[in-house]
Amino acid sequence: MSQATDTYVRTHAERMLEELKDLLRIPSISTYPDNAGDVARAAQFVAGKLKDAGLENVEVIPTDRHPLVYADWLHEPGKPTVLCYGHYDVQPPDPLELWHTPPFEPTIRDGNLYARGSADDKGQMYMHIKAVEALMAVYGKLPLNLKFLIEGEEEVGGLSITKYVSQNQAKLQADAALVSDTSLYAEGIPTLCIGLRGLIYLEVEATGPARDLHSGLYGGAAPNAVFGLVELLAKAKDAGGRIQIPGFYDSVAEPAAAEIASWKSLPFVESEFLEKEVGASVLTGEADRMVLERVWSRPTLEVHGIAGGFTGAGAKTVIPATATAKVSMRMVPDQDPEKMYQAFVEWVAANTPAGIKTKVTQLSLGPAVVVNPDHPAIHTAAEAFQDVMGRPCVFTRSGGSVPIVGDFARHLGIPTVMMGFGLPDDGLHSPNEKFKLDNFYLGTMTVAHFFEKYGA
Amino acid sequence: MSQATDTYVRTHAERMLEELKDLLRIPSISTYPDNAGDVARAAQFVAGKLKDAGLENVEVIPTDRHPLVYADWLHEPGKPTVLCYGHYDVQPPDPLELWHTPPFEPTIRDGNLYARGSADDKGQMYMHIKAVEALMAVYGKLPLNLKFLIEGEEEVGGLSITKYVSQNQAKLQADAALVSDTSLYAEGIPTLCIGLRGLIYLEVEATGPARDLHSGLYGGAAPNAVFGLVELLAKAKDAGGRIQIPGFYDSVAEPAAAEIASWKSLPFVESEFLEKEVGASVLTGEADRMVLERVWSRPTLEVHGIAGGFTGAGAKTVIPATATAKVSMRMVPDQDPEKMYQAFVEWVAANTPAGIKTKVTQLSLGPAVVVNPDHPAIHTAAEAFQDVMGRPCVFTRSGGSVPIVGDFARHLGIPTVMMGFGLPDDGLHSPNEKFKLDNFYLGTMTVAHFFEKYGA
Repeated sequence: MSQATDTYVRTHAERMLEELKDLLRIPSISTYPDNAGDVARAAQFVAGKLKDAGLENVEVIPTDRHPLVYADWLHEPGKPTVLCYGHYDVQPPDPLELWHTPPFEPTIRDGNLYARGSADDKGQMYMHIKAVEALMAVYGKLPLNLKFLIEGEEEVGGLSITKYVSQNQAKLQADAALVSDTSLYAEGIPTLCIGLRGLIYLEVEATGPARDLHSGLYGGAAPNAVFGLVELLAKAKDAGGRIQIPGFYDSVAEPAAAEIASWKSLPFVESEFLEKEVGASVLTGEADRMVLERVWSRPTLEVHGIAGGFTGAGAKTVIPATATAKVSMRMVPDQDPEKMYQAFVEWVAANTPAGIKTKVTQLSLGPAVVVNPDHPAIHTAAEAFQDVMGRPCVFTRSGGSVPIVGDFARHLGIPTVMMGFGLPDDGLHSPNEKFKLDNFYLGTMTVAHFFEKYGA
Repeated sequence: MSQATDTYVRTHAERMLEELKDLLRIPSISTYPDNAGDVARAAQFVAGKLKDAGLENVEVIPTDRHPLVYADWLHEPGKPTVLCYGHYDVQPPDPLELWHTPPFEPTIRDGNLYARGSADDKGQMYMHIKAVEALMAVYGKLPLNLKFLIEGEEEVGGLSITKYVSQNQAKLQADAALVSDTSLYAEGIPTLCIGLRGLIYLEVEATGPARDLHSGLYGGAAPNAVFGLVELLAKAKDAGGRIQIPGFYDSVAEPAAAEIASWKSLPFVESEFLEKEVGASVLTGEADRMVLERVWSRPTLEVHGIAGGFTGAGAKTVIPATATAKVSMRMVPDQDPEKMYQAFVEWVAANTPAGIKTKVTQLSLGPAVVVNPDHPAIHTAAEAFQDVMGRPCVFTRSGGSVPIVGDFARHLGIPTVMMGFGLPDDGLHSPNEKFKLDNFYLGTMTVAHFFEKYGA
């Protein structure tokens, strides 16, 4: 464990933070067409910092949507090569009125850095770049070979990077990938994530009458698009939270007994999870599964948003002609997302109420992924983590999706070290997203140690 | 039947239309606080035209929300007094993109006047004023006593006029009221409406987690406010459209056999109603009831709008913290709206899914009303209608609500002549609302004839 890189990070902490704040000020919201210029600006910013850190062959690669940023340093033949991934795009910040300080004006409070993207993923991606800077500054070279591939479409399904990885297998070849887009299990517990759920994201549009109708004159006989959509969606789960799409659970793999046992040993307190994180009256879902199974190894169906009819202030007595819902299904091993999407489409067709027409549109689709904790890169990362934090590393899964991990496995045949420094209460995708400042520095040091150890 | 007033209306048709267009240009949308100034402007316009027509004691009466306009002419003691009612406020015009010409730029196409409020109710209310103008111009006086009370809150529940009527019973005393806010059964068929459904309008708000959550990290265990609301609302009706609120049908009165028989004799063609008016694939609702029962004499429950979570372009993977729906129930004789509202509130409490909190807010509430076709005013109105249009008057109901009719019955003890000149395809509350120009003039003549006949 290198004191020198640690010292470098501590000495340059303030400047590194200012750089990260500059990146966080760019509202690189990938889903809004109006922000495309900001997304491009963030790509240029990242490219500049990769170059400043000492990486070579820096490219901003145009795609059908938002650019990719590539860089490498390949002067240690015979040593391993790590492919570092991150994303510089962010989720929309709404509802804006719930932010205590503006989402794109990074603010420090109580040792935390508040901004949209602080933890997901600008702050975590930036640790990789600063680890390179520290190693280059201290040693004048890197302890192993590195490639960087950073995208701007992670929050919108990442189609461009998937295409790029599949078409550039030789250029991107590596021994392992490194992704910092996950969390510590809890403050102070070194954590490697070895499983991610996949994601199918889609829209369901319902159409009833040809136009909005007066509910007095037609109510009782005319189909109502909002109610039709409500009736349809309600059938997707039973009262116990079990998803009713035919065949949905057929291919679901159960985690190994040892993995379940290790989850049971984690300091998970259901009442704290409920009160401090979720903030509802009770938890829901499959009552016969422990909570960590429900969020890590069980598939889900969620409605993320719904809109239709009159929703302004006051009263309007219409029978709405159309209504739309955003729906996702989280996939687990060994579900086939293509098959599950088809099953959903067929289920919608079979369950659409009389008088209503429905249309399903796919927005993105990715499988679940699990990595082998015995691979040398994972093993070494766990040791580096343990060295820095002084306690054994735990292996968890995440219920979220990082589709690139599946792409790396499929197209490059490499495992991914998912070494994240977020905390469970960082508020990813929520108002007041934050990243603990200590973890930004600790993460930078740990990544540098992992590179040293894996190169040794 | 007076040729003189008919001739007057024909001679001044163009100027009367221009006046009505001026009124239609005022976006007097009562539900939007931002349009309060426009609503006030429309009240002043109406007051001015009442005075110009020869009415006296014209008042613009301030209320807690939008003003009432009063006027009278009381120089025929011993003759009947009619209280003329109308409303100068309108529904919101959205969705704006579906209008062929802007909603507040009245446009003539194919003999129809297109504008928000053309039929509901500015155009119909204006017929009363122009009938007075014609009678005063031709005879120098009116054939009976008239009072006018015109409101600006009909589309938002009409709380102010209800209060005013209950507090000004002596001032408003009359033998009958006249309301033109309904339709002919079909082109060329003189129609008096003798029954209206009542309306309960409310909002249901659902709350799940304390904030929007990342659906990857919490999906499977955290309650989802949108899905909770969807689950709740779906339980409101069974697949056959029967409303599941306990006791909902207990007090529903069946129409008399004679009334049902007369409905069966109307030229109602279900396939035309479906294709030309509703524009959906099939009709829905209680299959064992004929369509005219479903829309005239059966109670309903409709969801007018729903909103929650992420509904912008693209994908956002949140578990929404809140969701809201606008819901109404149409009341029929002899349902008690207060009781039905309470039953709904209790049903919501009993059926709210685990982990979700719900809140119900009442926006308006009014009972159904039926009037006696044998009352002299109704009887005379039917004769005047038959004289002008040359065929017998039919008695129908309307599924819509005109809450004032109940207030007149309750507080003044008088029946209301519901003599409307709209057509079923006028698109009330919809884009491209229209009023047939011929019916505007025919209505003005018929109202004048009714006044003459009832005064004779």
